[in-house]
Amino acid sequence: MPQSRIMRSEGQRDSSLYVCAPLNALVAGIYEENIHLDEIINHGDFGIGTFDDLDGEMVIVDRAVYQLATDGCAIKIAEPIMTPYAAVTFFNPTIQADLDHETQYIRFLEWLNSLLPSPNIFYAIRIDGEFSRVRAHSVPRQANYRPMAEVEAEQRSFSFENIQGTLAGIYTPDFMSSLSFPGHHLHFLSSDLQSGGHLVSCTPRRARARIQLIHRLELNMPMTRDYLKLNFHGDLGNNRNQPEK
Amino acid sequence: MPQSRIMRSEGQRDSSLYVCAPLNALVAGIYEENIHLDEIINHGDFGIGTFDDLDGEMVIVDRAVYQLATDGCAIKIAEPIMTPYAAVTFFNPTIQADLDHETQYIRFLEWLNSLLPSPNIFYAIRIDGEFSRVRAHSVPRQANYRPMAEVEAEQRSFSFENIQGTLAGIYTPDFMSSLSFPGHHLHFLSSDLQSGGHLVSCTPRRARARIQLIHRLELNMPMTRDYLKLNFHGDLGNNRNQPEK
Repeated sequence: MPQSRIMRSEGQRDSSLYVCAPLNALVAGIYEENIHLDEIINHGDFGIGTFDDLDGEMVIVDRAVYQLATDGCAIKIAEPIMTPYAAVTFFNPTIQADLDHETQYIRFLEWLNSLLPSPNIFYAIRIDGEFSRVRAHSVPRQANYRPMAEVEAEQRSFSFENIQGTLAGIYTPDFMSSLSFPGHHLHFLSSDLQSGGHLVSCTPRRARARIQLIHRLELNMPMTRDYLKLNFHGDLGNNRNQPEK
Repeated sequence: MPQSRIMRSEGQRDSSLYVCAPLNALVAGIYEENIHLDEIINHGDFGIGTFDDLDGEMVIVDRAVYQLATDGCAIKIAEPIMTPYAAVTFFNPTIQADLDHETQYIRFLEWLNSLLPSPNIFYAIRIDGEFSRVRAHSVPRQANYRPMAEVEAEQRSFSFENIQGTLAGIYTPDFMSSLSFPGHHLHFLSSDLQSGGHLVSCTPRRARARIQLIHRLELNMPMTRDYLKLNFHGDLGNNRNQPEK
């Protein structure tokens, strides 16, 4: 049994995940939705996403927004910037658990899953710890409309050894894979705020997980021509999305 | 081209659809979620749904809630009552169009679809008119956990001839079929408020359609044991949902 405890419960009531556009649109290659970061921050102080033109990975921790580039560098975003996809909440965890020994990635995921009471709701997950190794990737800036399956071939991977940092992200039930990445979607940010990326795998030495149950989704659908004219043929699970000719 | 006009646009900004539980849960046979009707009415004055134990079809028009029984009778609901599934909004249409001649169902649907600017957002749809014929159905009260595919065999169909009334309902994009019935989901209520049901087909003689664009979804996930323990294997499209043994 994992060592976990309930931290408090009052935050659970109005816990809500805000998704600024269905993920399907991004997967189909709509990399510009021009949603202002202010709009995102108004709906949460914690979460993940990307930037217009798929220009790196986004992580939002403690209301600060970081851009994680293909060289593994983190840049704190201060100026107004726009996004086609982000999922955020006001972080208010109610479950906490500690890991106190070096743990391989597959066991780490099992431990994480054992902390979730159900696969049928969303969770915001934050893990602070020391890692023997973190493997991550990011994407280079893209032309709009290029299918994500092609873009993924250009992702750059990198590793960090013996690093302290935070994994921040969202768990999404499988049956909502057209709206938000299904399963665990975690981005890494180092404690010195200089490095990070989309988590591929990690080996934590010690870690504290804090988890927020989220049973309410607020989904925005962009009122842009690109979105309204998109011809969806499926969801992320079967990768059959195609923009309309 | 359909005769349509934009009525007004200010209502569009905060137009939101509230769904009190993912449809998948209902399809899998969770017919009791005990969500109070007050909770539903707080999120909208217009919409569709059902009642605990799948006890008839629900239609909400002008903030009044009607239960549509298997004999085709409509009963106005006054007392507190509970539901496992409802989808509602505050009705604020921005598109209006008139049909002025008798129209077969397939042509009526084509006309309706021609009024929707995109298949990728939700719509609230209200059609008031005179109908040569309306074919509808409803479901008898069910034991909890019986898969909906079995229940559907027990639906009772009925027809109304030369009747005035209202079709009220929601259009849902296909890629959100795990959350809300995909496509047009319309319930009929006669003008005298005595009859109604889930629309199967109709032949309008004249009709006025009013349509509200909805680009924001608020989805609630029930924090009940039944919902949290449900084992989803798919969505409505492939009918592979099964409650966990």
